[in-house]
Amino acid sequence: MFIPSDREATLKAPPEARAEAGAVTEDGVGPSDLAEPAAAVAEAAGRSRAASRILAGASSGRKDAVLAAWAEALVEDAPAILEANAEDRRVGRRAGSTDGLLDRLELTEARLVDCADGLRALIGLPDPVGQVVRGSTLANGLRLRQVRVPLGVVGMIYEARPNVTVDAAGLAFKSGNACLLRGGGAARRSNAAIVATLRRTLAELAWPVDLVQTIDPWGRPGAVALMRARGLVDVVIPRGGADLIATVVEQATVPVIETGVGNVHLYVDASADLDMALPILLNAKTQRVSVCNAAETLLVHADLAQTFLPTALAGLAQAGVVLHGDDRARAAAPAGVEVQPAQPVDWATEYLALEIAVRVVDSLAEALEHIRTWSSGHTEAIVTSDLAAAQRFVDGVDSAAVMVNASTRFTDGGQFGLGAEVGISTQKLHARGPMGLAELTTTKWIVWGQGQIRP
Amino acid sequence: MFIPSDREATLKAPPEARAEAGAVTEDGVGPSDLAEPAAAVAEAAGRSRAASRILAGASSGRKDAVLAAWAEALVEDAPAILEANAEDRRVGRRAGSTDGLLDRLELTEARLVDCADGLRALIGLPDPVGQVVRGSTLANGLRLRQVRVPLGVVGMIYEARPNVTVDAAGLAFKSGNACLLRGGGAARRSNAAIVATLRRTLAELAWPVDLVQTIDPWGRPGAVALMRARGLVDVVIPRGGADLIATVVEQATVPVIETGVGNVHLYVDASADLDMALPILLNAKTQRVSVCNAAETLLVHADLAQTFLPTALAGLAQAGVVLHGDDRARAAAPAGVEVQPAQPVDWATEYLALEIAVRVVDSLAEALEHIRTWSSGHTEAIVTSDLAAAQRFVDGVDSAAVMVNASTRFTDGGQFGLGAEVGISTQKLHARGPMGLAELTTTKWIVWGQGQIRP
Repeated sequence: MFIPSDREATLKAPPEARAEAGAVTEDGVGPSDLAEPAAAVAEAAGRSRAASRILAGASSGRKDAVLAAWAEALVEDAPAILEANAEDRRVGRRAGSTDGLLDRLELTEARLVDCADGLRALIGLPDPVGQVVRGSTLANGLRLRQVRVPLGVVGMIYEARPNVTVDAAGLAFKSGNACLLRGGGAARRSNAAIVATLRRTLAELAWPVDLVQTIDPWGRPGAVALMRARGLVDVVIPRGGADLIATVVEQATVPVIETGVGNVHLYVDASADLDMALPILLNAKTQRVSVCNAAETLLVHADLAQTFLPTALAGLAQAGVVLHGDDRARAAAPAGVEVQPAQPVDWATEYLALEIAVRVVDSLAEALEHIRTWSSGHTEAIVTSDLAAAQRFVDGVDSAAVMVNASTRFTDGGQFGLGAEVGISTQKLHARGPMGLAELTTTKWIVWGQGQIRP
Repeated sequence: MFIPSDREATLKAPPEARAEAGAVTEDGVGPSDLAEPAAAVAEAAGRSRAASRILAGASSGRKDAVLAAWAEALVEDAPAILEANAEDRRVGRRAGSTDGLLDRLELTEARLVDCADGLRALIGLPDPVGQVVRGSTLANGLRLRQVRVPLGVVGMIYEARPNVTVDAAGLAFKSGNACLLRGGGAARRSNAAIVATLRRTLAELAWPVDLVQTIDPWGRPGAVALMRARGLVDVVIPRGGADLIATVVEQATVPVIETGVGNVHLYVDASADLDMALPILLNAKTQRVSVCNAAETLLVHADLAQTFLPTALAGLAQAGVVLHGDDRARAAAPAGVEVQPAQPVDWATEYLALEIAVRVVDSLAEALEHIRTWSSGHTEAIVTSDLAAAQRFVDGVDSAAVMVNASTRFTDGGQFGLGAEVGISTQKLHARGPMGLAELTTTKWIVWGQGQIRP
């Protein structure tokens, strides 16, 4: 396929140079400009594929050595990475980016050390590649083995947070995959600097540098090309807000794994142990607000409208949580606690902030119906002392995780003991809930015969 | 959502009536007509979802009773089903359908009995629903269980063969899913008659009839609506030719599982046991030609060009196989055996017929490169006596199944001992290779606590 030589040069130039090219392509490119990025991304994906073949059969030991070297290199290169990040933030501020974006964008010495620790944590994890999932010897003597193998080329599309670049590269590498990274324009220089460090380290250890590539220079058209690089890219994993994920799902022809949108519900049943209910509510809503497993809607059984609910509303208000409630919830608010009237949009909203929607329901069935209507299928929890109610809730909720008498904040790969987490899948195919290394692999049936033919 | 009452009547009328409506909507509806089918399919999917909730928790015994009743009912209703099928074929012949299509379309007493036997075979299979995939008790006392649950609503899009209607309904039902079936215009009356029988049986056993629905009356726009009924349909499984699958992948926003395109390769290595090679070749190509695991390309090591290859070409010709070869293959043809010059299209073609492409390669590496270039990722086989060559082939081929010294025809759920087969997935996500009942399920994390909160 024809790649204009200067573009090819750009692709093969050090990431810094690519970032500059990115600064050009990033701005105002329309669908009419898609052909060239598509060709470039296809060419990059081809090099990822070739590199992935070399990685596929590598021993865990050799892979872990790279993870350790990456962790060191990131700390060594901190000055360059932090300077690139500072420039990204200067540009962002000039462009009027929100404080939230600038915060997600910010790298510090400490955050880089966390990234390095994240890579080191992968070293201890079992390598899924080569695991025999199933096996048997058939009556005709065929020896059948279903073995875990890497997916091959994994595309990651994410926003702002440059630390995802490190996470994604580490997870993909440990699971035997090459990665093509699209980190978003705002963090372009930070990601380019990080990718430069990872690639330099790969070269030093005699691995193909194209095991880690960024397509940021190709801007949004490059991201679209990645989603549509069918047969060249094995899976695309979007990490970010609902809009990003919806865009990818709509445009992708490459298989997609959706992650992370969490409109999470906590239902407090009539039979709830109230000494349990309040701490679980406060933990689910306030322990960390910007995460997908934080509670966004509180459903309370009508029997508790005069007992638990006023205390709950007061407790939330005291913790600085903005309250949106239906009429019965508002009526239950104690003096001095303001509860705004909830609009339908409140039931649909993942606030990711100190804000919650509150509704009084007359029954468990009504709670389940509300959850079916508004949930994003991430995590829902019930607080109850009634075993039958717990079982009905567990069976009736169609989400990746269902909690009984526990905080929704536990839906997490680390908390579940799965080790590192690629993300939390809210879809039903391939992976559901926290995704670990095994979810970045597929399987291959291997059949050993001695001349068997089909009768 | 507003559904014109006559359409609603159509949807709820017996399938025969719907088939007639289908006869109307089937013809020449364009994208501008999509809104109404989309609304109707969404409404149907909503009823599937409601019905699926009732099925989700059902015991295996109750599900097996339905399968047994379906098997009986299909045979009882044979006259009506066969008459509908005869009418489909009359219409097809008048419309100038190919013999191949008319053959796939044809139902006979015997084929109906096979369908019934297929349903009875499901009765004996273990029920995946409720299986605990993983489980542990965490340090904080949380009891974690990952449990298999049905996907919910499964969409099937297929062509011509009415027996797929029975297979799909049986597999979906046993795995706890409601199914929305789009069987294609040519078999509309046959499918309507079969669905009528299945729904009548469900009603007699006090199950919701909407566990099995056809959207055939909505024609192609209905099929498109099904592919795009995101959030209403959990997965769409296309069964049919490469064109159908490509269309679904391109247009779907619902997750798709691709099945069945098999451009299957057999490589005969320099070290091959020739007494093994010829029977495997003939079995892989000729034992059944219209199936996805039949061999379509033969790759032969150059060392065997004067020994094995002439015998192989003669044997294939004798079996009535049309030969397409590269220059060296043609040069190896014995007198009286015609080998047409292979074009690139031959390397890409899944003949599904007594036809094969033949190429001589200088090395295993060249064979692997050919397979990487042209394979559809279904099944590839090597015949070899060299362990290192076998291992290199197994590692180097990126397909759902890799055979060593065995016929490619063994890639089959029944042959693998997985029981019934939904299809053979050629994708890497969720399921790869023969898909059994478990591949029609997802999982749910269920967490039982005693008030745990996240520190």
